[in-house]
Amino acid sequence: MPDHAAKPHPFERLSDRLSPLVEQALRRFAWPESSAPRRLVEAMNYSLFAGGKRLRPLLVLAACESVGGQLESALPVAAALEMVHTYSLIHDDLPAMDDDDLRRGRPTCHKAFDEATAILAGDAMNTFALQAILDNVPDPARAVAAARELAVAAGLEGMVGGQMADLESEGAAPDLARLRYIHEHKTGALITAAVVCGGIIGGAGSATLGRLRNYGRRIGLAFQVVDDILDETSTAEQLGKSPGKDRDAGKMTYPRVMGLDAARTHAAELVTAALAELTGLARPDGLRAIAEYFVSRTH
Amino acid sequence: MPDHAAKPHPFERLSDRLSPLVEQALRRFAWPESSAPRRLVEAMNYSLFAGGKRLRPLLVLAACESVGGQLESALPVAAALEMVHTYSLIHDDLPAMDDDDLRRGRPTCHKAFDEATAILAGDAMNTFALQAILDNVPDPARAVAAARELAVAAGLEGMVGGQMADLESEGAAPDLARLRYIHEHKTGALITAAVVCGGIIGGAGSATLGRLRNYGRRIGLAFQVVDDILDETSTAEQLGKSPGKDRDAGKMTYPRVMGLDAARTHAAELVTAALAELTGLARPDGLRAIAEYFVSRTH
Repeated sequence: MPDHAAKPHPFERLSDRLSPLVEQALRRFAWPESSAPRRLVEAMNYSLFAGGKRLRPLLVLAACESVGGQLESALPVAAALEMVHTYSLIHDDLPAMDDDDLRRGRPTCHKAFDEATAILAGDAMNTFALQAILDNVPDPARAVAAARELAVAAGLEGMVGGQMADLESEGAAPDLARLRYIHEHKTGALITAAVVCGGIIGGAGSATLGRLRNYGRRIGLAFQVVDDILDETSTAEQLGKSPGKDRDAGKMTYPRVMGLDAARTHAAELVTAALAELTGLARPDGLRAIAEYFVSRTH
Repeated sequence: MPDHAAKPHPFERLSDRLSPLVEQALRRFAWPESSAPRRLVEAMNYSLFAGGKRLRPLLVLAACESVGGQLESALPVAAALEMVHTYSLIHDDLPAMDDDDLRRGRPTCHKAFDEATAILAGDAMNTFALQAILDNVPDPARAVAAARELAVAAGLEGMVGGQMADLESEGAAPDLARLRYIHEHKTGALITAAVVCGGIIGGAGSATLGRLRNYGRRIGLAFQVVDDILDETSTAEQLGKSPGKDRDAGKMTYPRVMGLDAARTHAAELVTAALAELTGLARPDGLRAIAEYFVSRTH
């Protein structure tokens, strides 16, 4: 009998079950080896297939399952969410933006290729993410609803607006309202969209979609609070990147704005509030495991 | 009685009739003054409302009319086509790409703002163009068909692939096949999509959409041949930009590859072939006027 410590966390069991589906979906619904210039396609593949937790696709699948939907039907949307996330990393890493040379331990796209190729690879991936939904979700009403949800979350009132606010805030005085705006938009909007899109494809009604949206907003913010905490407290080995980078860049973080203990408490409260939204769902286990995983990382 | 020379070209009559609708559509279907960072919205407005011929929106409206559709229903799609065109100009002008300081006589977006803002403004506009269709085309099947048509034309197998091939071709030996690939993708794909999207919104069947696609491909290529000819033959005053720029940049142009007279003949042949596709349409006058306008510019 394995003792308690040896038991895999429910998130690990979820990830073991769904991650192979996600990787298959990315290969199945990504751009074909097309007539496009080879270097452009290579740069897109280099960045999309660089690994990573695939958190957003897992949220799409877990949310679809949570409302009794079929995983199969959600696979193109799961792939699309990872494409939008990947395009945003390619552009955020550019010299004119965060100017990062390394991503997941490998050269960033503009380092492995060049700036022009990285800009175009991100542009094409941004467009293709929506195309993947429009091409592969058979019901037009659900395709429109999911693609629209993703577009709003990715755009100027979501992820791109959050990145702009983040760039403008470097060196600014700590300000919780501004920090919250950045996190809710730069990362939170896409995480929320992943959950809502999974519900849309699973056939959820508006009341259920409202609860999924609330769950998504809370774990989206919790995810970023935890990320800030780990940036302060982890070793490079634990983190897989240099810790303290955000702090050194003069970026606001939750520990800087409210202190480390208060940030931990805030993350736990957000997760508790997120879990409360899952009451009454057909199969909430996956979404519960993801929410609990977030807060477990801070202890 | 005005003499023949004083008579406005049919294209001018079309433009006088439809351009006010296009400008209204851009203001009506563009992003709201949103919660997004002001500087980002300002950069997007700076570039979208910088004027220009609005050729792609005119093609959407003329194509919708040509199949007996209502102009009103095509307005969001007309706006979306101009947004994708504008985002592509913002990114193509970046230092890592064509590195242009001036666009339509004004500083380019990254000069008027900064590189990071220009990248994000283009990203947000790319996404919002598809959102404008998904939000405002009431019939989900037509919304999916039009958004899909635009996404394919804008992406790696269309406009972005063409820009990549154009960057890779600088200084390359003149090669008609390569030049044709660049033009058919970098500018032709979006012009074709404008015509096809207008037909989709107008309710055209697949046979009619096929003819509209053929028309679009031919005028799309003719447009670029004419642009190359004008780059060789015009004064800066006529052109509104420095002539010879493409030639000086070592870019392939039709006059360089096939000679000036052969290029003029090629443009005329493409327009004749485009006009032949309009036979049997309910109201072909607008599309005819646009095709004839292209070739009229070279004499």
